[in-house]
Amino acid sequence: MTSTRCAVCKYFRRRCPPECIFAPYFPADNPQKFAYVHRFYGASNISKMLEELPVHLRAKAIESLCYEAKCRMQDPVYGCVRIISSLHQELHLAQSQLAKTQAEIALLNACVGVVEPTPSSSESLVQQNGIDHGLDNASDIWFY
Amino acid sequence: MTSTRCAVCKYFRRRCPPECIFAPYFPADNPQKFAYVHRFYGASNISKMLEELPVHLRAKAIESLCYEAKCRMQDPVYGCVRIISSLHQELHLAQSQLAKTQAEIALLNACVGVVEPTPSSSESLVQQNGIDHGLDNASDIWFY
Repeated sequence: MTSTRCAVCKYFRRRCPPECIFAPYFPADNPQKFAYVHRFYGASNISKMLEELPVHLRAKAIESLCYEAKCRMQDPVYGCVRIISSLHQELHLAQSQLAKTQAEIALLNACVGVVEPTPSSSESLVQQNGIDHGLDNASDIWFY
Repeated sequence: MTSTRCAVCKYFRRRCPPECIFAPYFPADNPQKFAYVHRFYGASNISKMLEELPVHLRAKAIESLCYEAKCRMQDPVYGCVRIISSLHQELHLAQSQLAKTQAEIALLNACVGVVEPTPSSSESLVQQNGIDHGLDNASDIWFY
């Protein structure tokens, strides 16, 4: 019954049981997906991580592990931490630039006799400062 | 010679050899550091990752692995991918806000008779669009 084994059971050359914990996330036609996570986490740790999660969250966990593993493959030193670092820098730059342009607007508004800031410029700093790293809707999470 | 064992050799209750690959990064007085990465990656995979890197990059690799492991501990579904997703959203918001304020500046400049955009506003979009996720200086990377 080789054709019905998942990628993990195929890799380990073992029978794929009907309730195999890997089967829904590692289909036989995509062995590379398992290869990525297996290289860094190992099948045993992935199995433990899956067992600790409710079934409806397991696919998302595997996708995020695959993403991290791909990043680690491309950058063995920093992995996806490099992306976090880079995004922090970009965000800092964008926010600094935004503060500058808002200051320019305040000056220009004064020049044209409009003392009060426009609604969009007054909202922007509040929006920038009000965000934390949590997401209200976890299903919207970005992977790739 | 128990007191001279690193955290990894202590965990596995084995002798810590003089050239132990783990010893420089997992001192005995910080067993939690190894516990984080061991839980998700396993000692064998960590050893393999270290062996594939030049010695001067190994400490940075261990720090980034610890960071990812801590994130995965806090968020078993998304790990540090949630942070990447959140930063992407914040960056998108900041850049949208920046584009709006730049449009306001252009309008206000026209009102005060300054047709050309100011240097800072004309530079900003170029700066925003010109950044990729690579870092010129890897030693500046952000971890915590």
